[in-house]
Amino acid sequence: MNRFPERVYICECWARDGLQGEDQFIPTEKKMAIINRMVEIGFKRIEATSFAHPKLIKQFADSLEVLKGIKRPKEVTFIAIIPNDKALDRLLDACNQGYGVQEITAIISASEDHLLANLERTFAEALPPLADIVKRARQAGLKVIGCIGTAFGCPLAGEVPLKKIIELTHWYLDKGATSIMLGDTTGEANPRQVREVFGKMKELFSGVDFIAHFHDTRGMGLANTLAALQEGVVYHDSSLGGMGGQPATRRPKYHKGFAGNTCTEDMVVMMEEMGIKTGLNIQEVIDTAIMAEEICGRQLFGHVTRSGPIRHQSPRPLSLLELRLNEEISPALFFAEKLEEMFSADKIAYRVIEEALRKNWPIPEGLKMQPEGVAVKGGLTARDILVTRFKVLMVNKEEKQALLEVLSQKANGDIFLEGQIKIIFPS
Amino acid sequence: MNRFPERVYICECWARDGLQGEDQFIPTEKKMAIINRMVEIGFKRIEATSFAHPKLIKQFADSLEVLKGIKRPKEVTFIAIIPNDKALDRLLDACNQGYGVQEITAIISASEDHLLANLERTFAEALPPLADIVKRARQAGLKVIGCIGTAFGCPLAGEVPLKKIIELTHWYLDKGATSIMLGDTTGEANPRQVREVFGKMKELFSGVDFIAHFHDTRGMGLANTLAALQEGVVYHDSSLGGMGGQPATRRPKYHKGFAGNTCTEDMVVMMEEMGIKTGLNIQEVIDTAIMAEEICGRQLFGHVTRSGPIRHQSPRPLSLLELRLNEEISPALFFAEKLEEMFSADKIAYRVIEEALRKNWPIPEGLKMQPEGVAVKGGLTARDILVTRFKVLMVNKEEKQALLEVLSQKANGDIFLEGQIKIIFPS
Repeated sequence: MNRFPERVYICECWARDGLQGEDQFIPTEKKMAIINRMVEIGFKRIEATSFAHPKLIKQFADSLEVLKGIKRPKEVTFIAIIPNDKALDRLLDACNQGYGVQEITAIISASEDHLLANLERTFAEALPPLADIVKRARQAGLKVIGCIGTAFGCPLAGEVPLKKIIELTHWYLDKGATSIMLGDTTGEANPRQVREVFGKMKELFSGVDFIAHFHDTRGMGLANTLAALQEGVVYHDSSLGGMGGQPATRRPKYHKGFAGNTCTEDMVVMMEEMGIKTGLNIQEVIDTAIMAEEICGRQLFGHVTRSGPIRHQSPRPLSLLELRLNEEISPALFFAEKLEEMFSADKIAYRVIEEALRKNWPIPEGLKMQPEGVAVKGGLTARDILVTRFKVLMVNKEEKQALLEVLSQKANGDIFLEGQIKIIFPS
Repeated sequence: MNRFPERVYICECWARDGLQGEDQFIPTEKKMAIINRMVEIGFKRIEATSFAHPKLIKQFADSLEVLKGIKRPKEVTFIAIIPNDKALDRLLDACNQGYGVQEITAIISASEDHLLANLERTFAEALPPLADIVKRARQAGLKVIGCIGTAFGCPLAGEVPLKKIIELTHWYLDKGATSIMLGDTTGEANPRQVREVFGKMKELFSGVDFIAHFHDTRGMGLANTLAALQEGVVYHDSSLGGMGGQPATRRPKYHKGFAGNTCTEDMVVMMEEMGIKTGLNIQEVIDTAIMAEEICGRQLFGHVTRSGPIRHQSPRPLSLLELRLNEEISPALFFAEKLEEMFSADKIAYRVIEEALRKNWPIPEGLKMQPEGVAVKGGLTARDILVTRFKVLMVNKEEKQALLEVLSQKANGDIFLEGQIKIIFPS
């Protein structure tokens, strides 16, 4: 059970696989804003765009503009999907002009039925030009992900034999691919199968970097990711908000179009909670997912964007029990010992209030606290409020006040409230 | 990795935990309809209702009516949650009148903070009356699930020590509980923790039946279920549509109320796809989940209700490749060898068409096929249609015709369609 990797690398696919099925065109500057934010918060692998023909997928008509406009620190690998030789021509032009990518994804389906439906080619027709793409990309100094789609099953052909996956992996490595992606293109995988397939592949191809790419079509995205982690898979694909829905360029809407990628923010929370390092901060990833929701104009599929991260590893909040034992200290609210620190910056204020909560300091004379916009049931007064979650929204230096977002409960009653509280500090 | 149990027992919690947070009152006959359907399709454990005081949770004001009205085959165990001694009085009255349950759930939180917030009691105050409930229920011949809530973390207290879970398990078993439920009341668990906790508990308490009860608050319901399966847990809780949202009777809305149970239909698909027997038919479970959606008047959280079950274990549908190789057989449609069988019943028709598809029979002279209500892109004709998914909607004996729901693709082109096709059989 302890084969989990210590550190994983998540490739954020929102800008390509995530947007591929999005009907509305996401403005170029919005795409760049999300990609830049991904870079800032620590993603080291970002699938930035697709070089599919703009006539086929309008969403990627701005692929060159996006690549031109984004921040490009050296430690971040940008990836683009290259469906054919003309797409590679366009990418290599961009590379020559200094705004290409470091890695491409070359694609084939493990199911010939899917290949025919998606690219109108048999294996015999598809493999020679694919070999050419891999070869030319490698000659140009690019890394190549050999993506094997429908690796866990095909909506057209049904079961896909492991033999085919092995054969295509040999083929890709022989042609020069630098890593192998097993793609659950339409979300057919189950966790037992994922363990069996990755277990076998890692045994046969030790030393090869495998990438797990799941879709959440049947809600098994995270369970399959867990299964891949148990087989020691280090590279995982996901998309903010669990976006993605049409995994094929030719637009067959498998499963009524409900086939988003595994959700990035939920994946990061699961991994970090399990003690597997992602190099990412949970709250920053959630905030970026909320940015994506705002850009798309709707609630996406992430859970932690709504529920917030898990707090059982966080500092313990105010104990209801302790408060009950010593009712004298109610109203149990926050006070900062070094009050002045509150006015330096939000982060310091947050830290100090946290400290005050943990130490259960009483509210000093002169510190006023006014609930504002708090939805209260049962005639609650400020004296009854126990803060269990809070966040500094604003510290106004001039007026010496802070606005806190709180989730609170009365200690011994049937009351729940959520809202904002203003604290006015003594002048 | 092969510690997965061969057979599991899913307790369907929709009628209690699922509905507990539902704002609209679900009519008694609708509750009974779903429970009866669960019985019909093979659920052996059903949480039928709560005996929480109707003033606290109006949804369960009809608990006695529900229990009176439902089908009660001997092989099905009905379960009710019993929060206090008065609730037990009411249940035992019902048992004496012949419409009780066979098993009760007794509840305590592993976090004293949660216990205080939820039941207004300390451990010292809560345990003696709980012991009395367990004792009286056992004396009345009922089985007792000792539920330990917030077993994997508490939104108020943060981390919950394993020591406390062990202590409470000893306590419950000592008082006479017949099984132990570890409840992830507000969705704080992660898969590594689940393996560690269940691994340790099963080691310490071999022979004891443990029940895994997860909430999908952070999207980890199935991943945590997978972790529990890996530790050999046989009893799993879930709710149709992933319903559930207020896991506490006192109504604190943890995580903005977003804390549904793990989704039954997604869980069944995952387990069955993994070869773990649930005793349930995937399609029947999905249909029951759709019933629940219709009753609640909205789309719920299940994935497979939208995407359909995975087909990679199903009989192989018509191959696009084979069709391409032999274009003479297009339009590649269904024909039943024993045509008359189509008119006996939907199920027979379905089986025969499946057989026809598998055998790739040509359409006979005189069999007419008319696309109806099919959304077609690109000037598709009947000759181009390849059926990849279908379902008999209606067989009209008099007119000798069938209406099929189809998901189709043109073999070699950019066409997708979804809709209905009418077949008229030769008379």
